[in-house]
Amino acid sequence: MPLALLDDWIRAALREDLGTGDVTTEILLPQDRKARAFLVAKEPFLVAGLGVSLRVFEILCSDLVCLSRVADGDCVLKGSILLEMEGSLRALLSGERVSLNILQHLSGVATLTRRFVDAVKGTGAKILDTRKTLPGLRSLEKYAVRVGGGSNHRSSLSEGILIKENHILACGGIGNAVRRAREGAPHCLRVEVEATTLEEVREAMGAGAETILLDNMSLETIRSAVRLVAGSARLEVSGGVTLENVRAIAETGVDWISVGSLTHSASGMDISMLMREDG
Amino acid sequence: MPLALLDDWIRAALREDLGTGDVTTEILLPQDRKARAFLVAKEPFLVAGLGVSLRVFEILCSDLVCLSRVADGDCVLKGSILLEMEGSLRALLSGERVSLNILQHLSGVATLTRRFVDAVKGTGAKILDTRKTLPGLRSLEKYAVRVGGGSNHRSSLSEGILIKENHILACGGIGNAVRRAREGAPHCLRVEVEATTLEEVREAMGAGAETILLDNMSLETIRSAVRLVAGSARLEVSGGVTLENVRAIAETGVDWISVGSLTHSASGMDISMLMREDG
Amino acid sequence: MPLALLDDWIRAALREDLGTGDVTTEILLPQDRKARAFLVAKEPFLVAGLGVSLRVFEILCSDLVCLSRVADGDCVLKGSILLEMEGSLRALLSGERVSLNILQHLSGVATLTRRFVDAVKGTGAKILDTRKTLPGLRSLEKYAVRVGGGSNHRSSLSEGILIKENHILACGGIGNAVRRAREGAPHCLRVEVEATTLEEVREAMGAGAETILLDNMSLETIRSAVRLVAGSARLEVSGGVTLENVRAIAETGVDWISVGSLTHSASGMDISMLMREDG
Amino acid sequence: MPLALLDDWIRAALREDLGTGDVTTEILLPQDRKARAFLVAKEPFLVAGLGVSLRVFEILCSDLVCLSRVADGDCVLKGSILLEMEGSLRALLSGERVSLNILQHLSGVATLTRRFVDAVKGTGAKILDTRKTLPGLRSLEKYAVRVGGGSNHRSSLSEGILIKENHILACGGIGNAVRRAREGAPHCLRVEVEATTLEEVREAMGAGAETILLDNMSLETIRSAVRLVAGSARLEVSGGVTLENVRAIAETGVDWISVGSLTHSASGMDISMLMREDG
Amino acid sequence: MPLALLDDWIRAALREDLGTGDVTTEILLPQDRKARAFLVAKEPFLVAGLGVSLRVFEILCSDLVCLSRVADGDCVLKGSILLEMEGSLRALLSGERVSLNILQHLSGVATLTRRFVDAVKGTGAKILDTRKTLPGLRSLEKYAVRVGGGSNHRSSLSEGILIKENHILACGGIGNAVRRAREGAPHCLRVEVEATTLEEVREAMGAGAETILLDNMSLETIRSAVRLVAGSARLEVSGGVTLENVRAIAETGVDWISVGSLTHSASGMDISMLMREDG
Amino acid sequence: MPLALLDDWIRAALREDLGTGDVTTEILLPQDRKARAFLVAKEPFLVAGLGVSLRVFEILCSDLVCLSRVADGDCVLKGSILLEMEGSLRALLSGERVSLNILQHLSGVATLTRRFVDAVKGTGAKILDTRKTLPGLRSLEKYAVRVGGGSNHRSSLSEGILIKENHILACGGIGNAVRRAREGAPHCLRVEVEATTLEEVREAMGAGAETILLDNMSLETIRSAVRLVAGSARLEVSGGVTLENVRAIAETGVDWISVGSLTHSASGMDISMLMREDG
Repeated sequence: MPLALLDDWIRAALREDLGTGDVTTEILLPQDRKARAFLVAKEPFLVAGLGVSLRVFEILCSDLVCLSRVADGDCVLKGSILLEMEGSLRALLSGERVSLNILQHLSGVATLTRRFVDAVKGTGAKILDTRKTLPGLRSLEKYAVRVGGGSNHRSSLSEGILIKENHILACGGIGNAVRRAREGAPHCLRVEVEATTLEEVREAMGAGAETILLDNMSLETIRSAVRLVAGSARLEVSGGVTLENVRAIAETGVDWISVGSLTHSASGMDISMLMREDG
Repeated sequence: MPLALLDDWIRAALREDLGTGDVTTEILLPQDRKARAFLVAKEPFLVAGLGVSLRVFEILCSDLVCLSRVADGDCVLKGSILLEMEGSLRALLSGERVSLNILQHLSGVATLTRRFVDAVKGTGAKILDTRKTLPGLRSLEKYAVRVGGGSNHRSSLSEGILIKENHILACGGIGNAVRRAREGAPHCLRVEVEATTLEEVREAMGAGAETILLDNMSLETIRSAVRLVAGSARLEVSGGVTLENVRAIAETGVDWISVGSLTHSASGMDISMLMREDG
Repeated sequence: MPLALLDDWIRAALREDLGTGDVTTEILLPQDRKARAFLVAKEPFLVAGLGVSLRVFEILCSDLVCLSRVADGDCVLKGSILLEMEGSLRALLSGERVSLNILQHLSGVATLTRRFVDAVKGTGAKILDTRKTLPGLRSLEKYAVRVGGGSNHRSSLSEGILIKENHILACGGIGNAVRRAREGAPHCLRVEVEATTLEEVREAMGAGAETILLDNMSLETIRSAVRLVAGSARLEVSGGVTLENVRAIAETGVDWISVGSLTHSASGMDISMLMREDG
Repeated sequence: MPLALLDDWIRAALREDLGTGDVTTEILLPQDRKARAFLVAKEPFLVAGLGVSLRVFEILCSDLVCLSRVADGDCVLKGSILLEMEGSLRALLSGERVSLNILQHLSGVATLTRRFVDAVKGTGAKILDTRKTLPGLRSLEKYAVRVGGGSNHRSSLSEGILIKENHILACGGIGNAVRRAREGAPHCLRVEVEATTLEEVREAMGAGAETILLDNMSLETIRSAVRLVAGSARLEVSGGVTLENVRAIAETGVDWISVGSLTHSASGMDISMLMREDG
Repeated sequence: MPLALLDDWIRAALREDLGTGDVTTEILLPQDRKARAFLVAKEPFLVAGLGVSLRVFEILCSDLVCLSRVADGDCVLKGSILLEMEGSLRALLSGERVSLNILQHLSGVATLTRRFVDAVKGTGAKILDTRKTLPGLRSLEKYAVRVGGGSNHRSSLSEGILIKENHILACGGIGNAVRRAREGAPHCLRVEVEATTLEEVREAMGAGAETILLDNMSLETIRSAVRLVAGSARLEVSGGVTLENVRAIAETGVDWISVGSLTHSASGMDISMLMREDG
Repeated sequence: MPLALLDDWIRAALREDLGTGDVTTEILLPQDRKARAFLVAKEPFLVAGLGVSLRVFEILCSDLVCLSRVADGDCVLKGSILLEMEGSLRALLSGERVSLNILQHLSGVATLTRRFVDAVKGTGAKILDTRKTLPGLRSLEKYAVRVGGGSNHRSSLSEGILIKENHILACGGIGNAVRRAREGAPHCLRVEVEATTLEEVREAMGAGAETILLDNMSLETIRSAVRLVAGSARLEVSGGVTLENVRAIAETGVDWISVGSLTHSASGMDISMLMREDG
């Protein structure tokens, strides 16, 4: 998403945080003072969202001078400087919280994703996110997942066909559901269907499913499904995936493993803004 | 915030999740079918956000019939039914993810807050949130903190005076900063100032600070600060607060303890939607 | 797209047409007069957009009583009544133009689509729309295409992978482009690539393209491509498709034929609103 | 309308077309590659909308360098280059469709308008548009009509008094309606009334109508109306106007001829974007 | 403007006043308490804006029961009850200020307008407003002017042609400017031109101006202008109009007198909300 | 509030005033002509809003060159030049009204505020505004109050606790209300309560109110309240404050005097734009 299209989103975030204005800063600091600010990592993590984080300050301060010391996708250590800026003291203080909030969150998502990606390294499996994102943040969270080395599942209900249990029931079985979807599906979308047993996997294959989601299956059943499908469809595993069990799942030979916690339960990384007034 | 004012926010969330439409559901399910749906807890937690969660479905389905089995602030067990609804099958499926995403997150915030609140029970200290919230979600997250028994720090930079290190430097010391703030502060706002040493606490008191934020102090220093201030100002503790150390901090006698992780690092609670088509 | 999410769009359309108010109506007609209005077809066509058209009046008139005489997808004759309404005279007059403008356009798109769909009946080919839509109208125009029996190509750049000439050049050939796309493509999207010669079709097949777009090829070349591909990928034809040549194209055995004129050059159908004041 | 006020509209159009992002381009093309692009006419037409079309790319690409080879109002031939740009390859590809969609449509409207204008050249009659425009596009479409040499009827219901059949019925006759409108009309607006017979024309004149709209009259009746009115009011003709009959109508001596098809049925002109990557 | 289209405006006003919520009310009052509230006039005035004022409460309180005791255009005395409502105590308190702010202002505009209208009663002159309105409030303020018996000048720059001094200079004189405007003016708009001397009035007449604005002329010059024009154009007086001199101006025989202070300097009327909790 | 966040507000104001475009200017003036414009005071006043006023022109005219001759907070005389600009003639004319409307209003608010502030000079009392502002203008009006030397009461219901009569009734007395508020109040907000008698003042003090609002009390009672409270709480006076009585009130020794008329009844200052076309 081009940064220019994010400006409305950032302005809304600034309005939320500024309310009717940063009273402390307005009372105490003169309008024309300049300062230098540094965003500093307080723990090691994988950086994501630096562009958005910086754009917050640019919107508040038209003559900001800025130097990025790292880039999205870089790993930083405790103490690393991420961004160095020079501009209006008031603008730097007023934008600090919004800028850090989004950078901390996106870096948290990217860092957690990277841990899952590292855990399956060398297997053919890819780590996927889900639609379990926070309202208003999906595009950014999915970007952070990519920065962390993960892949994106559909970003919205219009970007993929995924036939779930309730759809299956309403169609009278997996076979019918898959066939109807293949017939009616938009032109560019694959047809994926959820299966909970090997029998359902077989039925899905028979009906021509392009991807089969193995939902909450045991490792053993997953292995059987991989053998059964034998490359005739792609396989995604979902449900109860943790850093502890993800490698074993990956080693079964499935194509994708989707992990809701990447976005709904990532902790924010610890980042501070340090300042120095310009002499 | 009255629910009516949330409708724009919810519609934006729905647009984000629907994209150009829920293709799977549109292809597979007839427009007029009705169904019954249940939101079910998959782990124990403290409920927050039920009203927003329900409103998502009401916006998609004008003739929804709904029964809340619990209310915000209730504790539920694994397997508890939160909400029971009857309405358009398509609307229920299309709204599921948005509704759950917000309910899982807010319940997560409320539940984590409650754990901190329980940890300090019996001391006089109150648990506070911070401005470390996710863009677009602040009002709802702060509501969840209140549901969990916590109190809200300022919701925006216009709802409180908090003099931080950089303000102090720019004013030439705590005393000057506090005096200038008391002179210029809006009519309804208390003046709070950050202190990192006992010396600064003393200077803040002398200048008439109404609240002093003890920033990243040791337990021992906090205790000394409490003795020193002796009720002449209110005391807030901030920095490095965890479930492990929060009780000890509370027992020093401070008034408030602010905890950033309530909002920036709460995990989403596990909630599912189960459905049954109407015969 | 649920109607509730269209309300903002309709309100914007009403503001555009009302400007600062319908002065003629406000000067001449009393506020409390009721009337009955009929939307009447002035030529035969296929109806699309009746729900949106009606919603315009509902937004202006809270106590509108309405009877739909036909439904989206019905064919009507000159003189057919589409909608019968009873409500505020002022609201009916003020909403007339917006309601008709959208209904005329969508019915025009649906009717033109149906002519293409009828032309290929009996062949296996499906008629597709394109992204050549008018800004702000895409979802509605694509809905009208479906009403007319057509299928939707991707609704946005995020809902499909389509590798075009410029992508191919940048990747150093079709093979590289397709392989890179298959590796990086989001989870639910098929990989489609444009080809202009049989040689390119062969290269695309070899690289694993799931769909090949035959761009501006002669009938003869299309036939050869169908034979060459032999079902191992799906084929879409695009470029210069008219009502005159579409059947011949369809009979080559391709899967899809995309037609830009469905949306960018459909004429509006002729529809009037007749009124009768309530005695 | 100053271009700056169009930016929100363009950003909305880009969001509609980009969805959650141009996946094909993001996967296949590096972020820093530059390219040169040309908008090229594929058929002869009258150009309208070049400023909007260019602005689309400027919004996506902050360092775009651009050279307009033609201007709005110029006629171009098949093969003419309209615009030459140099900038980010990704931005050029991602903005292509939105930019072309609006340029093709507006040029189509301007070209059709010019044909009507040419058809009446030498008579005193002016070609007018109507409010039969597509929601969200009115200002731009009316601009294109002006580019084509046409004049604008009212742009909204607040920009003109036009008394139609239903208003007349509700007022008990043309005379009453016109008198009431002249009394109550806003200060800057002329009073126009619809007439379908010579008798109504006479009544409208007597009541002081400033403009009379001759609705769906035969050529003969129009001629009689022109003689009857003899310059004491302005005359507009509306209903069933085509390129075939417009000159005959114009030669009757009426002042204006309004043509709904200018906006509701103009075909999009054929324009392509060609690219060349920068070495 | 239909009330339904005002809802976004009202919601924005409520968000401005509520900030992140009405903390006093939320802390002190239970959510389910009902109350009865009365809007009461504290001085005599002409009522305008009751519909908007009431709508504020309806948006906050879905089950509000309401009785309007007066209507827009009624004169009320000190102590008159305007509106009686029964609904949620919290909603009534939270909406009070927004509702009163708009009602007080619009009633102020209507009351001041009425005083001007009364002052010219019996002369043929009408009182006009101007574009000197407050941003965001124009439609409502112009509505209040109509309630007060005044007429509306153009509501926007697109709803009237008014040639001012700077336009005249740029065209090389009044005659040229008027002729060019008559040639190019949109179809439904009269051509009005500003004149500051009798000589300019003569030139404007000669060029066919439909309305002449006599700008800041003495009473004597206005009288001469009326004689000179003798009904061949309409006359508007503008500049320095007060309640003291407006009758003398009206008696010169001009058609319209425009008064900027109607909107830019009207005082708010004094209105209170009284409450009684439901037993 | 940083100017960048005002752009949406200004664009909305421009759209309101431009409607579908400034037709007079578009017809009469060529697009490329340049001019010089001056904003000139037509009466003496205190300037407020110059930044917003200028920004209006910057949005319409990307290459505007501008020189501010005065700054917010300066007093100007009749004839003083406020702003000197050079840019597109069209842009200057099209932006004139919006720019002046806001500047006239804000300068009016600042000027009236200054008169109150001057009236109490030398006493310790500060002049406060209220929430009696016009919808959409609060932040700007409150800024103008500060420019005039006044202080801001809460800008929204979330920025202060103010317990009013209806809250007191619902809590069963002032004492209960204040205690409950102190217990539940957000962390940074003082607790203020309204009192109408000395008895209520006493009760408020006893319960720990930090500020007491003396509502509509006589001078004599205010004096008694000051003696009674003796510095243990801050005192605000409200109700019926005029330029005539404000000094006497201030001399009683209260801390704040709030004046609704600052914002709801300030007259617009008289300011003109003069132009000179560039040779």
